[in-house]
Amino acid sequence: MTINIQCEDRVGLVAAISGLIAQESINIISMREHVDTEQHLFFARLEMDDNENAQLLKNKLKEVLPQNATINIHTSQEKKVVVMVTKEYHCLGDILIKNHFKTLGATVQCVIGNHAVLEEVCTKFNIPFHFISHTEKDKPSFEKEIIDTLKQYDFDYLVLAKFMRILSSDFISQYKYKVINIHHSFLPAFIGANPYRQAFDRGVKLIGATAHFVTDHLDEGPIIAQNINPVNHTFSVADMMRAGKEIEKTTLSRALQLVFEDRVFVYNNKTVIFE
Amino acid sequence: MTINIQCEDRVGLVAAISGLIAQESINIISMREHVDTEQHLFFARLEMDDNENAQLLKNKLKEVLPQNATINIHTSQEKKVVVMVTKEYHCLGDILIKNHFKTLGATVQCVIGNHAVLEEVCTKFNIPFHFISHTEKDKPSFEKEIIDTLKQYDFDYLVLAKFMRILSSDFISQYKYKVINIHHSFLPAFIGANPYRQAFDRGVKLIGATAHFVTDHLDEGPIIAQNINPVNHTFSVADMMRAGKEIEKTTLSRALQLVFEDRVFVYNNKTVIFE
Amino acid sequence: MTINIQCEDRVGLVAAISGLIAQESINIISMREHVDTEQHLFFARLEMDDNENAQLLKNKLKEVLPQNATINIHTSQEKKVVVMVTKEYHCLGDILIKNHFKTLGATVQCVIGNHAVLEEVCTKFNIPFHFISHTEKDKPSFEKEIIDTLKQYDFDYLVLAKFMRILSSDFISQYKYKVINIHHSFLPAFIGANPYRQAFDRGVKLIGATAHFVTDHLDEGPIIAQNINPVNHTFSVADMMRAGKEIEKTTLSRALQLVFEDRVFVYNNKTVIFE
Amino acid sequence: MTINIQCEDRVGLVAAISGLIAQESINIISMREHVDTEQHLFFARLEMDDNENAQLLKNKLKEVLPQNATINIHTSQEKKVVVMVTKEYHCLGDILIKNHFKTLGATVQCVIGNHAVLEEVCTKFNIPFHFISHTEKDKPSFEKEIIDTLKQYDFDYLVLAKFMRILSSDFISQYKYKVINIHHSFLPAFIGANPYRQAFDRGVKLIGATAHFVTDHLDEGPIIAQNINPVNHTFSVADMMRAGKEIEKTTLSRALQLVFEDRVFVYNNKTVIFE
Repeated sequence: MTINIQCEDRVGLVAAISGLIAQESINIISMREHVDTEQHLFFARLEMDDNENAQLLKNKLKEVLPQNATINIHTSQEKKVVVMVTKEYHCLGDILIKNHFKTLGATVQCVIGNHAVLEEVCTKFNIPFHFISHTEKDKPSFEKEIIDTLKQYDFDYLVLAKFMRILSSDFISQYKYKVINIHHSFLPAFIGANPYRQAFDRGVKLIGATAHFVTDHLDEGPIIAQNINPVNHTFSVADMMRAGKEIEKTTLSRALQLVFEDRVFVYNNKTVIFE
Repeated sequence: MTINIQCEDRVGLVAAISGLIAQESINIISMREHVDTEQHLFFARLEMDDNENAQLLKNKLKEVLPQNATINIHTSQEKKVVVMVTKEYHCLGDILIKNHFKTLGATVQCVIGNHAVLEEVCTKFNIPFHFISHTEKDKPSFEKEIIDTLKQYDFDYLVLAKFMRILSSDFISQYKYKVINIHHSFLPAFIGANPYRQAFDRGVKLIGATAHFVTDHLDEGPIIAQNINPVNHTFSVADMMRAGKEIEKTTLSRALQLVFEDRVFVYNNKTVIFE
Repeated sequence: MTINIQCEDRVGLVAAISGLIAQESINIISMREHVDTEQHLFFARLEMDDNENAQLLKNKLKEVLPQNATINIHTSQEKKVVVMVTKEYHCLGDILIKNHFKTLGATVQCVIGNHAVLEEVCTKFNIPFHFISHTEKDKPSFEKEIIDTLKQYDFDYLVLAKFMRILSSDFISQYKYKVINIHHSFLPAFIGANPYRQAFDRGVKLIGATAHFVTDHLDEGPIIAQNINPVNHTFSVADMMRAGKEIEKTTLSRALQLVFEDRVFVYNNKTVIFE
Repeated sequence: MTINIQCEDRVGLVAAISGLIAQESINIISMREHVDTEQHLFFARLEMDDNENAQLLKNKLKEVLPQNATINIHTSQEKKVVVMVTKEYHCLGDILIKNHFKTLGATVQCVIGNHAVLEEVCTKFNIPFHFISHTEKDKPSFEKEIIDTLKQYDFDYLVLAKFMRILSSDFISQYKYKVINIHHSFLPAFIGANPYRQAFDRGVKLIGATAHFVTDHLDEGPIIAQNINPVNHTFSVADMMRAGKEIEKTTLSRALQLVFEDRVFVYNNKTVIFE
């Protein structure tokens, strides 16, 4: 299991934590800390064998840590996720295959799509697919349908695997740091429709992808993983999109692995990641 | 030598060009073409042994190519460059070392700095250094001094190796596609002062650099080369700047090599590069 | 369609080829050439609209090219492939998903496995799976069964997607430059069983993968694509294997795309690839 | 300053170390640990403000750590290095420039070359250069001259910046884990003379470099850093060498930074690196 601690920094925290664990004769497999010296914040991730008295340990930790410390204990039990999609299959396909072979680090509870085209592939893998169209609805109605569907499931994370509708602040605020998105990204950054077209017109030499938690500000949440692929003048817009999809798939896959293994801390709109 | 051709596309261009070269019994070492099928533009780069009748060949090519074709013949003679700097040494140092060992693919004529700190290292390598301060001058006066200095030199390219003043459109327009700049770059893009600070605050996982020709629009000219380095939460602002400098150095070095070997074509604010 | 030409180099080849194409009023979308100046070999790839008189064009090309020139005309018709596997799903999964969504650039005819574990996922996608065990057979008998199965299918390439048995020279020689393999690779190179264990023990900082055509010499055929992922001391053997699988998947995917688009030439145990 | 600890693992080590530090009211800027769970070895690196009683702290640490624990305290004082070269300038040039601008993280005491060609550039930077030819000498005599020269200097590390002679086990054993080498590297690996020629003939798609500590076994010591650059069929042997030099320069630079900042632990012919 892992214990993730986030609190105000002060002298002696590592000693306090590790002293307590030693007292309990628990063997630490690995321990990682980070201090944000500007914000005076302390982060630690401890990996140890699963322990029956996790709750007791948590209580004891509370006593030796600063007030308001966040202590999260994660057992080795797998995370549960819901995936949301539109039409593109590349991220979903990778998730379904890994889920099927039990190497995703999480189990997919269901897939929600605002188009129906990806229902068939979900059905192949016996994953429930909910088609919730956004057409002829206002956003609140659309999101209410999604929320009603989500309520049927127990889940830890909501993965936007190329879900192409913008979710409202109201929606997002219900799932703080639980919604993970994959976003294409370019240097320079392109705003507006058809970014691959813009990247092509601009003649960029790299295309990339950014996986991040979704917050109120679209595409501006805490970054989990980023990666790039080189492109050149021989790439058509279609070639760029294809290369972009490969890097989106890889980057989301990496981000999910980090999140599902409880390696990611979020604060001040950024992340600490103990890889 | 190389012949670079840029013209309107039409059926039979490769046949016309290669037929002419074959007629002249010139052996082509390599030939590269590209067609921008949207813009109907044709680009070709031919590498061949140096030839005494280059001008004659150019005239003959003119006859078989569309009107307004651009034909540039480059002999194996080395390019000449002027380098402009402010205070940072990392790009200049790499250029000076390569210039000294004759592997830059160009010869540095002089260095112009708006601060004096890099004079000493230039002097070590017997490269003339011109200190032209920007303080207590308006921009036209500052740029006039630079232009007067540049007039003393014969040069093919002006390399901005971390020159931190913005040059006016008037200045740039005198050296169209001759001014090469290296620019830090991030995903997402950060505008304004202290981008590394912003990148740190945002928690980016990649930092990068873009080498480009300078045009009227600051940091918006045709991109020659881009590259990135991974960073993470353990990087301080200073660490990010250090990693940024390494990638700036590498990216500018790559761009200069491509330009000096006449591999770069510019059109519509983008580049075709026959690597 | 594409025309791929490989022949002895001589002055005027580009002129001869492009002249002929121009004569036929065929529009070349792109043309790429390469000359191996040491071996005096010429390679060209021409992309053009599909043409009904491809055979006629081929005959005319024969007349203007050196004797023994290899001329391959590929229409835009999709390639057909057979995939061979053992137990690992990561490469097969990626191929099946892409095949299902028609973005593989080829159609999978069937999958042959020397273990049965991957039959289920093939069946999900309606891909015939042939279980041919290697146990209690000598190699000739095992390979005869495979060959008998292969005879039922029309295919262009045989993809070894983590097929863990070594195929005999006799077998390979029947499918010259038609068998594509994905191989883990490390620096330094490790010979023998359990390379990830060896890489872990050695403390490598990069793990990689190489996709190549299979020849008589195991893992020594012409290289199509290579890629790497960084690792570090926190990676267990299992972590290294997982990272290795991701890079194997990506590298094989890239190699297949290049091969299926007829961008790869083979000679002297190496490749020319017009990316 | 940093304290680096390496010892047998046992429950409570982090508590013991951090407890002691907390007792002394020393503020830990960062602490990193790693446990090799197979070998039962514990590694820790603590960064803290410089402290006058470092020796006292070390003695106290000895008391709470297992016998035979290695405890190294490094103050922020810069490392001292001697650089050895042959003819190639690319790694030396980068070191000299960084040394001159005080960003190497170490100070170069002198350069020893078995050829004289790099003397001039060292002299420019006022770095003593010792020309010690290997010709007309047996290896013991050659190495004795080097050792006699080294004895004139106080140094922490000996950097082989493209020193192309093989040093004997006798020599190396005098500077255990103090000699850092940069080595080209390829997939597959090539043994013998002219590896770039072999890589060209083999048609590799990646070339790389490995920085490592030198041990008895040539090019087989603990790896500090590795990196690669993509190449393709258009690269001549000379192009591959040029690309190789760039990656060698970058990789050695990275390795030196890690070593000079006391981030590298060595054991069992591998490294733990707290980046």
